[in-house]
Amino acid sequence: MSVPRGGNEATSVLRSYVSGQWQRPTEDGTPLHDAVTGREVARISSAGIDMAAALDHGRRVGGSALRELTFHQRAALLKSLASHLREHREELYELSARTGATKGDAKFDVDGGIGVLFSYSSKGRREMPAGKVYVEGGPEPLGKGGTFLGRHIATPLHGVAVQINAFNFPAWGPLEKLAPAFLAGVPSLIKPAAQTAYLTHRLVELIVESGILPEGSVQLVCGSAGDLLDHLTEQDQLSFTGSASTAQRLRSHENVVRNSVRFNAEADSLNCSILGPDATPDTAEFELFVEQLVTEMTVKAGQKCTAIRRAFVPTELVDDVIGAAAERLSKIKVGSPENPNVGMGALASLEQREEVRRSLKALLEAGRLVHGDTRERLAVVDAEAVNGAFLPPFLLRCDDPDRTQPHEVEAFGPVSTVMPYEGAAHAVELARRGHGSLVGSVVTADTDFAREVVVGSASQHGRMLVLNRHNAEESTGHGSPLPQLLHGGPGRAGGGEELGGLNGVLHHMQRTAVQGDPETLTAVTGEWVQGSARTTTDVHPFRKHLEELRVGDTVVGGPRRVTLEDVEHFAEFTGDTFYAHTDEEAAAANPFFEGRVAHGYLVVSLAAGLFVSPEPGPVLANYGLENLRFVTPTYPGDEITVTLTAKRITPRHGADYGEVRWDADVTNQHGESVAKYDVLTLVAKKAPAES
Amino acid sequence: MSVPRGGNEATSVLRSYVSGQWQRPTEDGTPLHDAVTGREVARISSAGIDMAAALDHGRRVGGSALRELTFHQRAALLKSLASHLREHREELYELSARTGATKGDAKFDVDGGIGVLFSYSSKGRREMPAGKVYVEGGPEPLGKGGTFLGRHIATPLHGVAVQINAFNFPAWGPLEKLAPAFLAGVPSLIKPAAQTAYLTHRLVELIVESGILPEGSVQLVCGSAGDLLDHLTEQDQLSFTGSASTAQRLRSHENVVRNSVRFNAEADSLNCSILGPDATPDTAEFELFVEQLVTEMTVKAGQKCTAIRRAFVPTELVDDVIGAAAERLSKIKVGSPENPNVGMGALASLEQREEVRRSLKALLEAGRLVHGDTRERLAVVDAEAVNGAFLPPFLLRCDDPDRTQPHEVEAFGPVSTVMPYEGAAHAVELARRGHGSLVGSVVTADTDFAREVVVGSASQHGRMLVLNRHNAEESTGHGSPLPQLLHGGPGRAGGGEELGGLNGVLHHMQRTAVQGDPETLTAVTGEWVQGSARTTTDVHPFRKHLEELRVGDTVVGGPRRVTLEDVEHFAEFTGDTFYAHTDEEAAAANPFFEGRVAHGYLVVSLAAGLFVSPEPGPVLANYGLENLRFVTPTYPGDEITVTLTAKRITPRHGADYGEVRWDADVTNQHGESVAKYDVLTLVAKKAPAES
Repeated sequence: MSVPRGGNEATSVLRSYVSGQWQRPTEDGTPLHDAVTGREVARISSAGIDMAAALDHGRRVGGSALRELTFHQRAALLKSLASHLREHREELYELSARTGATKGDAKFDVDGGIGVLFSYSSKGRREMPAGKVYVEGGPEPLGKGGTFLGRHIATPLHGVAVQINAFNFPAWGPLEKLAPAFLAGVPSLIKPAAQTAYLTHRLVELIVESGILPEGSVQLVCGSAGDLLDHLTEQDQLSFTGSASTAQRLRSHENVVRNSVRFNAEADSLNCSILGPDATPDTAEFELFVEQLVTEMTVKAGQKCTAIRRAFVPTELVDDVIGAAAERLSKIKVGSPENPNVGMGALASLEQREEVRRSLKALLEAGRLVHGDTRERLAVVDAEAVNGAFLPPFLLRCDDPDRTQPHEVEAFGPVSTVMPYEGAAHAVELARRGHGSLVGSVVTADTDFAREVVVGSASQHGRMLVLNRHNAEESTGHGSPLPQLLHGGPGRAGGGEELGGLNGVLHHMQRTAVQGDPETLTAVTGEWVQGSARTTTDVHPFRKHLEELRVGDTVVGGPRRVTLEDVEHFAEFTGDTFYAHTDEEAAAANPFFEGRVAHGYLVVSLAAGLFVSPEPGPVLANYGLENLRFVTPTYPGDEITVTLTAKRITPRHGADYGEVRWDADVTNQHGESVAKYDVLTLVAKKAPAES
Repeated sequence: MSVPRGGNEATSVLRSYVSGQWQRPTEDGTPLHDAVTGREVARISSAGIDMAAALDHGRRVGGSALRELTFHQRAALLKSLASHLREHREELYELSARTGATKGDAKFDVDGGIGVLFSYSSKGRREMPAGKVYVEGGPEPLGKGGTFLGRHIATPLHGVAVQINAFNFPAWGPLEKLAPAFLAGVPSLIKPAAQTAYLTHRLVELIVESGILPEGSVQLVCGSAGDLLDHLTEQDQLSFTGSASTAQRLRSHENVVRNSVRFNAEADSLNCSILGPDATPDTAEFELFVEQLVTEMTVKAGQKCTAIRRAFVPTELVDDVIGAAAERLSKIKVGSPENPNVGMGALASLEQREEVRRSLKALLEAGRLVHGDTRERLAVVDAEAVNGAFLPPFLLRCDDPDRTQPHEVEAFGPVSTVMPYEGAAHAVELARRGHGSLVGSVVTADTDFAREVVVGSASQHGRMLVLNRHNAEESTGHGSPLPQLLHGGPGRAGGGEELGGLNGVLHHMQRTAVQGDPETLTAVTGEWVQGSARTTTDVHPFRKHLEELRVGDTVVGGPRRVTLEDVEHFAEFTGDTFYAHTDEEAAAANPFFEGRVAHGYLVVSLAAGLFVSPEPGPVLANYGLENLRFVTPTYPGDEITVTLTAKRITPRHGADYGEVRWDADVTNQHGESVAKYDVLTLVAKKAPAES
């Protein structure tokens, strides 16, 4: 179905996409209203949806299909999906307006969500292996003999990621949860909040219609969750974004507790922004602080769980900040998002507006209004939108920051309170009184102040932004969670973690410590570990194409004697005349050497000469080294041998080559390792690249 | 106090160590009994202990003191504590015997716990910074201009780690939780299980008497937790080891839920061990499997949350396994740990024995006994121990592995069930039926079988051991959690994570994404990031001692022209005659080069010649390189310049030197980076090492 675009025609009930088909509920459902006009947009219900069957379908069909794909294949699908949605974004913007969102708000939501898909696609290709098992950290030796090692792997949970989203980001919300789950190999079941579910519904329609993702990897339940949670197992997980009270209810749900279902909550919190004492009205930081405060109050009509609720300002700057903020706020027109002069749209519903008004009343017990008029029932520039959920922005001043209300009462709308502080330690103390926040910002060019406030209040924050003249142009702002960075926070903010690059993917996987002999670890992880068999054949491994190479393929080069003349010559040639290479007596006085030693750079250069296969062939370039350690000094007269072994082979999707990481071990005539490192090469494929 | 060592004298009530003093409860308490003799050992109660005050003391006194220390200082204290406890371990062994533990069991518990302290001390010094802020991962560029970056830091929670431990490891339990919390900078409040609390009590006495740890960093509550949980805040955390039912109760505690208190549970689970189809009776693996099964049944009288409850054996080998296991079991004498012939001691209490008997009865609905006699009320070699909580080992056989009992009923004692399976996929399916286990083992020398089983069942396991002839000698065994590796598991195992090296430390810290300009990130993390100011002075930074160096100290060397002669000479000298350096035409045909290029090794060797300060001085050695990337080819005729900047300075505690990591950026005449890497050096301190 598609949602009717306006007018008075009867609206349809939103269908759910479960168990491989769009299913209509067995009842008419509850009406959803346009936030601007108050007209009915659609109806919603999940009556008759078989939740247990949906979960089972996700696990059996979706999970199995996803686990058949490699991380790189999943990443490629995310990219295709992102491009597909980008092509259809105008349609989503249009629906966005019905939620009260301005065009800017809509882009924040829709483009932001698409951006998360692109970002995870890129992370998946660059930071994850070409296989299906993620290997975390290096091998841990568990015995002196090298026959017993441990290593951590991560594999996808064999369940469904149930994602209960908030009303305020009907596109970004589901996409930021889908992307890391999908990359991990875990199917999603999306349950949008009712108010704006018609937008998420269209988004999932676009996803399903595209046919890009494997069946079962995305499902949608519109309406109440019903008995969904009763069917969760220890392999499923539950992610929630929304109010603290709902988070508590879900977290303590009997079945969730009984099965230790992995639960993640992201709740709106009383985030703060702190103006540095250096940021007097003549500074760029002062302007940045005020501008950001006003932006955070008005974007999405302040309905952002990351919005600034508490603004801490040095006592002597409070009047200036309030004056400047009130002036900016007074220029912002509130009204229908379709009106191009409008700077702030409607709240998502009349119920939300009532909720904000109640909270505002509580806040006014401790502070007083310095901008906004509570008697003003509507503040619209657009007379047609008389039934919309509009509210003007309200700025409060509370001169006693020890009052509890500003730290505990959240008005989830265009409402902030300015409070004074005295000195960095006081600012830290006040910031911490939010009892857990998603984000805090410090606007200052004073790095000492920034350090003290950030380090002092970090344990109460998931993210902290330091904004100043140096980064303002590129800053993504206080209110924007980014896929690369952690989103979530302790306590009031829900105690969870989302996004944060690869961590967000790992949240959907089980970390397992694997112990065994080297050969077994190599087999399980697909990555050669020291102590595993090395395969030496007549064919130099540099003569093998990517498809022909196997981990363990080895070439041994040497021995070559490193003479005193070599060392002296190398010193002269490179200019590296460090005394340890040139002065026998001084070198012997060095606590680590018994006399003159060969340059480490000489050792690795000679080693390259020993393992290289000079003629043109599949190995295209050495693009780097990793983890180089000079383990034992090489003295003039020592004979070095190098053993080079293919360690990890990573075909690059869509390219004519891939990356091969080689283990290099340079040993001396006593069999001692003198240098150990990884050589990074690009190796051509034999067959032309897959598309 | 100390616990009376035996005889009939009246026993004392265990005191709690809270708020800086040993406090006696306000009531006489409940008696605790010797598991072997049944005599009263001590009494226990927490009546009158002010839990809120204890938490407050931990936060104010302990937390503040710990946060004043660097990671390295905390690591050094852990090492001192470990040595101190090692000196007193005989005393702990002796008390251990009263819990029913044999000398071997006692060592497993006491030495294992001390080993965790040593391990975390070592990890702290080697893998954590010298400062107080842990930096995780590299900088994330958030804008093209390089003025806005993100980076993750971890800082200690400003609360108390409340640790509720199980009765079976009264020394290891508290120590494995204390070590990572302490290293993180978070004080511990230890609440031992009643049955064996007298041993934990003595352990904490030893810790407090030593005076090694700052006051408030360790507290002890003997007896019930009272209203302890009601006072937890979002900065505290709760770790629990014990039964699944108690875990559920704690997880859903109203205040824990309301404040999103970080909760970690480790519950005993129905762990499995799988014999590979290759492991016929003539193989080493067959012997290893049987030996391990018997060991896991009898160590600590099977009272280990990691013990093997389900043994999966290829159908055709079931008779052989049972025969061999029964033979071994029949040789194990059960009785007083003081008797040197005894191979298995008592359960921790008569109540535990009753519990095991009840579970055994349930298991016998699905399986039959193949070793052990349920009619045998006592199986002691020591007639004096008639009142002890003894039980013989029971091995069951269940030929229908689809019966539910063996996968769901846990007898927390010397009880295991052998079941048949057919093929790897079936083994995986059965292993997964534990619905979440701490550990599973596969005994096989077949790496394909190992891979299939490990990857297939990893998402239900926190740890998997592959045991075979190659690693048996060094293997630490199925039942032993190691500090380096994750301990915990999904679902039934509690859904938590403990230990696992640094991860165990990070569980006690808040991860925070910090966004800002490079200068601010450098100030917050203490680590120089690209884009921050570089300080160039007349003094070459290699002439500065560790204490004099500052992050940002920089030397610029060059330019130096790289000539064709240099490249040809280097090729000849090192033997690295790869065509890209020696054959103009072939090089131009390479997709990455326009013609002959200089060796990467030549570029970094020349760069060293440009930044080095040759005379003896504080810089002692270059011990390695990290993250070397050849970004742009260097062509003959190019002029290279190197900029070397001190990035991270890590004084090594107790040594005359420290580590300095330098950022090296080699650029060409167009200002393009050609190579970027970190140079690792050892730099002498000016002052002699602190002890």
